[in-house]
Amino acid sequence: MARTVRLASIPGDGIGPEVVAEALKVLRAAVDGGEVEFDVTEFSLGAARYKATGDILTDADLDAIKQHDAILLGAVGGDPRDPELRGGIIERGLLLKLRFALDHYVNLRPTKVYPGVPSPLSNPGDVDFVVVREGTEGPYVGNGGALRVGTPAEIANEVSVNTAYGVERVVRYAFDLAQKRPAHRLTLVHKTNVLVFAGSLWQRTVDAVSVDYPDIAVDYQHVDAATIHLVADPARFDVIVTDNLFGDILTDLAGAISGGIGLAASGNINPDGTFPSMFEPVHGSAPDIAGQQKADPTAAILSTALLFDHLGLPDEARRVTEAVEADIEARSALAGARTTSEIGDAIARAVSR
Amino acid sequence: MARTVRLASIPGDGIGPEVVAEALKVLRAAVDGGEVEFDVTEFSLGAARYKATGDILTDADLDAIKQHDAILLGAVGGDPRDPELRGGIIERGLLLKLRFALDHYVNLRPTKVYPGVPSPLSNPGDVDFVVVREGTEGPYVGNGGALRVGTPAEIANEVSVNTAYGVERVVRYAFDLAQKRPAHRLTLVHKTNVLVFAGSLWQRTVDAVSVDYPDIAVDYQHVDAATIHLVADPARFDVIVTDNLFGDILTDLAGAISGGIGLAASGNINPDGTFPSMFEPVHGSAPDIAGQQKADPTAAILSTALLFDHLGLPDEARRVTEAVEADIEARSALAGARTTSEIGDAIARAVSR
Ligand SMILES: CC(C)[C@H](C(=O)O)[C@@H](O)C(=O)O
Ligand SMILES: CC(C)[C@H](C(=O)O)[C@@H](O)C(=O)O
Repeated sequence: MARTVRLASIPGDGIGPEVVAEALKVLRAAVDGGEVEFDVTEFSLGAARYKATGDILTDADLDAIKQHDAILLGAVGGDPRDPELRGGIIERGLLLKLRFALDHYVNLRPTKVYPGVPSPLSNPGDVDFVVVREGTEGPYVGNGGALRVGTPAEIANEVSVNTAYGVERVVRYAFDLAQKRPAHRLTLVHKTNVLVFAGSLWQRTVDAVSVDYPDIAVDYQHVDAATIHLVADPARFDVIVTDNLFGDILTDLAGAISGGIGLAASGNINPDGTFPSMFEPVHGSAPDIAGQQKADPTAAILSTALLFDHLGLPDEARRVTEAVEADIEARSALAGARTTSEIGDAIARAVSR
Repeated sequence: MARTVRLASIPGDGIGPEVVAEALKVLRAAVDGGEVEFDVTEFSLGAARYKATGDILTDADLDAIKQHDAILLGAVGGDPRDPELRGGIIERGLLLKLRFALDHYVNLRPTKVYPGVPSPLSNPGDVDFVVVREGTEGPYVGNGGALRVGTPAEIANEVSVNTAYGVERVVRYAFDLAQKRPAHRLTLVHKTNVLVFAGSLWQRTVDAVSVDYPDIAVDYQHVDAATIHLVADPARFDVIVTDNLFGDILTDLAGAISGGIGLAASGNINPDGTFPSMFEPVHGSAPDIAGQQKADPTAAILSTALLFDHLGLPDEARRVTEAVEADIEARSALAGARTTSEIGDAIARAVSR
């Protein structure tokens, strides 16, 4: 009996459509000839639609997306200098709205230094860690406000909201993940010496949950110090658990040290399965190189490995990962740059049974 | 006529006293035989005093410190695992209290890759930038709170406060600084696509002030993207202006890429001169190596160059900087590690007229 996976595809803006096309190619190649097939619905959302219609993500869009088993997203956000798009209106109205509405409380972002990829670090070591970034709280909740805007007496506040409910569930997920990984280590990153209320909640939660995981070695780093360690000795990390904003910052840095954000995949996970989870490259829409077949689709392709894992298809996940790793390793031997679809074609070929 | 500078010295905790001793040595050597002399008052503040007396920074301490022309601070904060010191009680009660009470709205943090210093980056390029970190607002204001603490219904909020008054003065300072530097470039770092109220205030302020500085090239980066650029191409930066928390994170990262936080100096500046400014290494108190003469006093010594500059003594500032640069360049040729005071002695010797 074939299993049909209903996949919502949101190519989005800029290079999004190009990298999603390659990810879908690989996705299909990975299941070709097997028991699983994908039924893909494409949603045309993003800056172009917003500029044409004024809609970003309607209730009807959201309801339709919820009818799927998983979501593959390319990148959203138009030209940042476009005044119509100021203040991240697409990012917030589309990407963050999906993460919040679909309760993606785990934002999973693995980092690995692949053999053959030049890292900007002279000696990165054996880097293989995962950031478990909280996805539905923190300074991302949109609870700020401003008074007397545009006057010399303006005051603009941002509120970071953190709950025991929200922190505990993501911390438990991180401990479970650490349990499955050989190194069995978990690092909480926060800024407990300044953000004392939120910091204390995070620290107490990690302390309390750690009692249930006696074989996990737990430590703590301030977010500023964590950036030093990520540059000086990134191989020390295994699982990092942190809040929404610190996770945003640390995972871009993690992408950079591992040889480029073009390889960084992510999953916005709703572990309860109440809503579909969403898989996306960490990189943005890069409007400056859009439509030129210059984008590296590897991060989008690696996101399908996370998607397969989430769907309980570890064999497909492994084959995608191995095909990507082999492709990356061969890159330095190749003469000249490949187009976006040449990279996708090569990986899709390698992934087929 | 000799000029007497009243200097408050706060050696603090851990390696603080060791590095401050060397900084004072160099400070005195730099003015020896000239028209300026230092009258140094030492304040014994920090974790040790707090644990002995329960006092962190009394009103009397603060009043006495205010009677000085400048402050030299080593490092504050005891063993982070000490339950008596949880929640950054010393950092907030002493360091942050001084920054706020003395209206240190500019936290000045230069980064340079010195010849001879091994950077963790394989190819850092010609790195020479300054982060102008806001020092009296943002998420550092201590306006958070929590409800139902310790229950499953706990909620913990943190509030970032940003005012036109506070943002404009630090942005103007940053533009003035960019004006004095050859590259004439200024980068605003924020997260305007998520923190829309604060982000919009920062962006509008930079846009408005830039009109008065037509020869400064201005750009903007999200804080997550800025970490990528700091690793991939740090030489592109000249002056970075950013909020208190982003500045905290970026300057530790900047210290790391430039070869270690052991070289990163900073000034907490009250440009109006209403209160004494405070100079300190960016590094912490490192209790694990305290009292062993293992700490590198270079960052504390470089902080005295910022102090001299602030006091209007550019010749002394230049001599300290040059002596440090020469010392750094000679390091790779030296056999074995030098003690904290051997490094201080060497630089003090080089700095003397
Ligand atoms: C586009 C932006 C809102 C988003 C975020 O801040 O989460 C992005 O930087 C990311 O990391 O996925
Ligand atoms: C000790 C701590 C409160 C402080 C800060 O966060 O500002 C430190 O990290 C720094 O950068 O000076």
